[in-house]
Amino acid sequence: MYTLLVYDVDAKRTNKYLKLCRRYLNWIQNSVFEGELTEAQLGCLKAEIKEILEEEDSIIMFHSREAKWLKREVMGQERMDIDNFL
Amino acid sequence: MYTLLVYDVDAKRTNKYLKLCRRYLNWIQNSVFEGELTEAQLGCLKAEIKEILEEEDSIIMFHSREAKWLKREVMGQERMDIDNFL
Repeated sequence: MYTLLVYDVDAKRTNKYLKLCRRYLNWIQNSVFEGELTEAQLGCLKAEIKEILEEEDSIIMFHSREAKWLKREVMGQERMDIDNFL
Repeated sequence: MYTLLVYDVDAKRTNKYLKLCRRYLNWIQNSVFEGELTEAQLGCLKAEIKEILEEEDSIIMFHSREAKWLKREVMGQERMDIDNFL
């Protein structure tokens, strides 16, 4: 299942969310991740999110059965995840 | 066509992008918009983005023929667009 995840959280917690999401998905832009997850992986990701979630945080996920149903278009700079080069 | 738009731009320009995207789409989270667009509207939106786009800006759009192909899930706080109440 293709998943897109966007989060908007307090600055104190962005690093926690960044590290967590990186273990399941690919970073494509600040606070934006995408990737393929099984139901089990999604369940784990959500459980881990619940552990760090605080009330003013907002996480939205979009799931699509097939990545090909979503056509992606980039304008401007395509962000590179620098971790790929470390 | 259902469109999801996420942007990551210099702080000096966030307000321009916010105002522009609001005219075409619905704000659902900081720097995240969604909505239904015709091909014509999408063309106009992209043309207007090109007018304000600067090299370090990054805009990613995801298009899906049907909104129902995307299942949305919110964790934490569902952001309310305060403009709806003004």
